[in-house]
Amino acid sequence: MNTVITLANRPEGRPKTSDFNFETEKKPSPQEGEVLLETKYVSVDPYMRGRMSDAESYVAPFELGKPIEGGIVAKVVESKKENLTEGDYVSGRLDWKEYQVSDGEGLMKVDPEAAPLSAYLGILGMTGLTAYMGLLEIGKPKEGETLVVSGAAGAVGSVVGQIGKIKGCRVVGIAGSDEKVELLKSKFGFDGGINYKTTEDMGAVIAEACPNGVDIYFDNVAGEISDGVHQHINQFGRIVNCGAIAHYNATSMPMGPRVEPMLIKKSALMQGFIVGNYEEKFPEAVKQLAQWLGEGKLEHSETIVEGFDNIPQAFLDLFDGKNKGKMVVQV
Amino acid sequence: MNTVITLANRPEGRPKTSDFNFETEKKPSPQEGEVLLETKYVSVDPYMRGRMSDAESYVAPFELGKPIEGGIVAKVVESKKENLTEGDYVSGRLDWKEYQVSDGEGLMKVDPEAAPLSAYLGILGMTGLTAYMGLLEIGKPKEGETLVVSGAAGAVGSVVGQIGKIKGCRVVGIAGSDEKVELLKSKFGFDGGINYKTTEDMGAVIAEACPNGVDIYFDNVAGEISDGVHQHINQFGRIVNCGAIAHYNATSMPMGPRVEPMLIKKSALMQGFIVGNYEEKFPEAVKQLAQWLGEGKLEHSETIVEGFDNIPQAFLDLFDGKNKGKMVVQV
Repeated sequence: MNTVITLANRPEGRPKTSDFNFETEKKPSPQEGEVLLETKYVSVDPYMRGRMSDAESYVAPFELGKPIEGGIVAKVVESKKENLTEGDYVSGRLDWKEYQVSDGEGLMKVDPEAAPLSAYLGILGMTGLTAYMGLLEIGKPKEGETLVVSGAAGAVGSVVGQIGKIKGCRVVGIAGSDEKVELLKSKFGFDGGINYKTTEDMGAVIAEACPNGVDIYFDNVAGEISDGVHQHINQFGRIVNCGAIAHYNATSMPMGPRVEPMLIKKSALMQGFIVGNYEEKFPEAVKQLAQWLGEGKLEHSETIVEGFDNIPQAFLDLFDGKNKGKMVVQV
Repeated sequence: MNTVITLANRPEGRPKTSDFNFETEKKPSPQEGEVLLETKYVSVDPYMRGRMSDAESYVAPFELGKPIEGGIVAKVVESKKENLTEGDYVSGRLDWKEYQVSDGEGLMKVDPEAAPLSAYLGILGMTGLTAYMGLLEIGKPKEGETLVVSGAAGAVGSVVGQIGKIKGCRVVGIAGSDEKVELLKSKFGFDGGINYKTTEDMGAVIAEACPNGVDIYFDNVAGEISDGVHQHINQFGRIVNCGAIAHYNATSMPMGPRVEPMLIKKSALMQGFIVGNYEEKFPEAVKQLAQWLGEGKLEHSETIVEGFDNIPQAFLDLFDGKNKGKMVVQV
């Protein structure tokens, strides 16, 4: 038998474990041209909250009663397809199932010798690509500029900061505990860190941490943290709107200071970023990321949770910031 | 004697006539290398509200007790400077004085035969340049796209819409009276118009007026009008933040719906626009605007108020939308 995790309910506000169902089905068999895959690593990501709702968005919503899908690294356990043989590893967007068949469409073969398998869901997968593309394509960092990153200890944020350092920026990260802030500096080489949970006046603290103002703000969270950063955006500043985890569970329209007067005063820009828009640049980006990783210029951080049954809880824990770096479930 | 208008007070909220002083001084005489100028037309513009405050901004604040300065067309009445002779007309940033001397720095000679003198404060001056640069450099209109303009019957807005039409867009304008909305369609060739004063649910009205959504929003006003437009921004939409007249008199931080979730969902951008950043492109832009004007492709609208003494009131009337098109005072 085969365990499958499906969408039980469309959550109102914060998702709960009861929004997921565990179902069993017969373990499938591959047809000619297909492979049987065994799930090894499952990626859980904040953007998936959006797919649990049926509101219009940039990716189709999950269907009620159907399996959740997301980034997965799987092992080929049976192959009736050319180019893929038993023992190969692949990554791609797959269902939350212990076993599944695939025709190989959209799958990428990954090399377990070149990097740990979980890295293909993180630094060499969508996480690394999001950091790389968002920072370089919208943030356009220049040497000597100041980069502020929110959600800095998270999967994307920690990579953004490191690429900022490679590009010669002064980098300040915002995270949710003293331990995370320490990690930003000791492990990821950030120049400064701010614990937003112990900060009363984010604007004042940003002013102190960024004496030359903020040229680039890579924003993974939005909300009040961002209000403080917006106060110190420099002329021609760039705000990369990569995530808004502060609002993903909102049940009414979140309100805040209007940004137009600031944007005009500073000739600044805010731009929504979705990594999928830059697909044609992925191969070049993965090559560069792998090179930096090989040269020891990029540290990556993972929180690995064990057990297929723990996938929903690992996802829910993202909204409490329980992860350091990329949250991955090892099956 | 010579009359001068100075800044009497830094206004709190909405400016009043008492924030301006009328003073008299001896009529000045030009020294060698200088000209004596007689003010003929004075431009009053919403952005000047910002200069009345001492808050940090992109232009230095006016000084208390010193003359207000702004766009002016003046006649050379006495010249001790090469290249300028009695009877010439010039435009530039000058003081609100009946007469003043200048060394010619920053002045541009204008031709009263080629266009009415007031046009050099409007369609062929900063107004036209703001519309042209903001729409083309940030809005990047493509044929068949939908362009929404707020403050559409104003000086900048009416030109933005017409350039949008020249570029093949479907253009919808938002203005503050049925009469203005009628003018948008009959005089400026907009495809549709919305009177925001009689609109309760701007979002619903925009949805109706823009069945294909909004690709470009050229925003002169911000505030609740913009909230309605933001709801219907298309994927890869561009929001040109040119003005925020709804907030210029605000005495506390204006609040509104947070834009980050929308920007991310739509991969959209908001960018603050200040025409001065594009100075190197002005000559080419003025040439193009003059060509369109000559070909009858651009209508321009002016509200001309008479009398030097009425300059402050004309400025204040901008905040009641009493102007149609560019507000100019003829001395």
